[in-house]
Amino acid sequence: MTIIQSVRWSPDGDAVRIIDQRRLPETLVERDLRGAAEVRDAIRTLAVRGAPAIGVAGAMGLAVAALGYVGESPARFAARLEEDASAIRDARPTAVNLPWAIDRMLARARERAAAGDGPREVAAALRAEASSILEEDVAMCRRIGEHGLPFIRDGARVLTHCNAGALATAGIGTALAPVYLAAEAGRRVEVYADETRPLLQGSRLTAWELSRAGIPVTVLTDGMAASLMRSGAVDLVIVGADRIAANGDVANKVGTYGVALAARHHGIPFYVAAPTSTLDPATPTGDAIVIESRPADEVSAGFGARTAPSGPFVRVYNPAFDVTPAEYITAIVTDRGVVRAPYDFGPRAKEARLLSRSR
Amino acid sequence: MTIIQSVRWSPDGDAVRIIDQRRLPETLVERDLRGAAEVRDAIRTLAVRGAPAIGVAGAMGLAVAALGYVGESPARFAARLEEDASAIRDARPTAVNLPWAIDRMLARARERAAAGDGPREVAAALRAEASSILEEDVAMCRRIGEHGLPFIRDGARVLTHCNAGALATAGIGTALAPVYLAAEAGRRVEVYADETRPLLQGSRLTAWELSRAGIPVTVLTDGMAASLMRSGAVDLVIVGADRIAANGDVANKVGTYGVALAARHHGIPFYVAAPTSTLDPATPTGDAIVIESRPADEVSAGFGARTAPSGPFVRVYNPAFDVTPAEYITAIVTDRGVVRAPYDFGPRAKEARLLSRSR
Repeated sequence: MTIIQSVRWSPDGDAVRIIDQRRLPETLVERDLRGAAEVRDAIRTLAVRGAPAIGVAGAMGLAVAALGYVGESPARFAARLEEDASAIRDARPTAVNLPWAIDRMLARARERAAAGDGPREVAAALRAEASSILEEDVAMCRRIGEHGLPFIRDGARVLTHCNAGALATAGIGTALAPVYLAAEAGRRVEVYADETRPLLQGSRLTAWELSRAGIPVTVLTDGMAASLMRSGAVDLVIVGADRIAANGDVANKVGTYGVALAARHHGIPFYVAAPTSTLDPATPTGDAIVIESRPADEVSAGFGARTAPSGPFVRVYNPAFDVTPAEYITAIVTDRGVVRAPYDFGPRAKEARLLSRSR
Repeated sequence: MTIIQSVRWSPDGDAVRIIDQRRLPETLVERDLRGAAEVRDAIRTLAVRGAPAIGVAGAMGLAVAALGYVGESPARFAARLEEDASAIRDARPTAVNLPWAIDRMLARARERAAAGDGPREVAAALRAEASSILEEDVAMCRRIGEHGLPFIRDGARVLTHCNAGALATAGIGTALAPVYLAAEAGRRVEVYADETRPLLQGSRLTAWELSRAGIPVTVLTDGMAASLMRSGAVDLVIVGADRIAANGDVANKVGTYGVALAARHHGIPFYVAAPTSTLDPATPTGDAIVIESRPADEVSAGFGARTAPSGPFVRVYNPAFDVTPAEYITAIVTDRGVVRAPYDFGPRAKEARLLSRSR
């Protein structure tokens, strides 16, 4: 089974090598990112996307950026590092993984500097830290896959929304990890991929990576999911998450909430698969999650032609995410195990402390 | 207020003049259809679309086609007319309006032939009959608008799916008719238009015709409707229908069912607006409605670029319609009045007889 790797070090280690996801499914193009501006742009323009992947790419990008000023004084090095960290951290607002990874990198840099290391040593420590984040992400995906595997029986028909697969992580994905492991274990499994307008991550990315791995996938438009469920063709839903509030509310790609409502209505289990780094104890409920608004053209001119008229009477609504309340979620599959309602990932919760140990 | 007219006679009366809806919203192109093959193709390729509009265009097309063989013998004329009627009737399978209009035209031809009329007289009668169907459609739209008007209060925010507007009828639409009349009456009204993948009738057509009429419209992707409702931004939903079964189940553009589920969940009224010709007493429930499957490329390559990979592991699901069970429908707004559950449009039902008088 061929599962792609979407984020890794370039062979000579001075760049972050990514698959440019804007070019899929037509062309497989890899790009080497050097410097904070390139990393920030790649994240902002969705060349690299998916909450875990942008955390990994952000951390690796900061390590690569630091190589550019190891010749500076310790104070100047620290200042430029903080500046680049801010630039990368702010590339997208919703996923918690990106600030989490950047803050972890900065903490490591401060710790080494406080211990007396010079810029070159700090940069080496940052590279090692980014490698750890990368490797932890790969391991995290596999553990999510193992915890979710029991939900994928032989012959299972899985519906997913957006892309929470290998392209969204450094490993084998979050929502798709159990699917890959089920296929690896010889179980027959097929996937229904919502195309996921406006940016079509489902048809462009999920269908692409699954078909490369030899897993049958059927693409449908987002509006077809409810009637597909009504027809009895879906056994379970698995989606990823961009941020999970302390009460279990999940922010994920816009459209997820409608899928959750339809799944509930038809008695179909609805699973969220996400690493513990996606849990945000500081956000009490989904209402507190900042939802990124994206440009109107993604909806009104997203295919090289105008798909909606312009003019004074026409507006576009384009939130990147929506919030699915915890009550619609059958279980949250993490790298530390499967969690069911009532969810409590708050700062004082036992479950949150348990889960946070793996961070 | 400028409301477009999507189907009419050409100035010299020898063609059906349509707005080519495949070219919107970029370009307003009108085309003159002559002969059954052109009409059939225009309907099949969605140059003209919308259940009432294809009924009107089909009837007018048959009248125009008949002009081509008025010089033949009565027997030959009748045979060619039946042949053309079949060709047009079979252009699309789901909407009941098309076979209804064609059968009405054939009944008129047979009646005139039985009364001794020759081909030229029959052709003239067909033209008059098609003009009646056109005029009845215009009047039907306005009556639907009047019956639906009380649901559109000042300041109302209406969500609709697909296009059941002026472009879908010969008049001011079905679902949009109450909106146009509300605006005409000076009420503030705004519309949320689901873009309606795969063919984007919402963003390309609904947004276009509403904005031309000066009515504010916001375009969103289909997956955004549920979270928009959750945010409290939608007061009511109105959609059209392609076929309504005897028990009130409604076949409409795919995606309608998911909108209905979300509306129900959020306590938002969900109205279906349709002419009585859309009621099909011969179809007991939605399960008996034939759902047209359309080509995979509409989903996987619908915008001039591949939006999904190809290959042996990739399939596409592309039903054109879905069925919304009657239980999710707050009321059905027809040209004869507003009908509420329990629906009974069966052949022996009093309500169906009442409604069918207007056919």
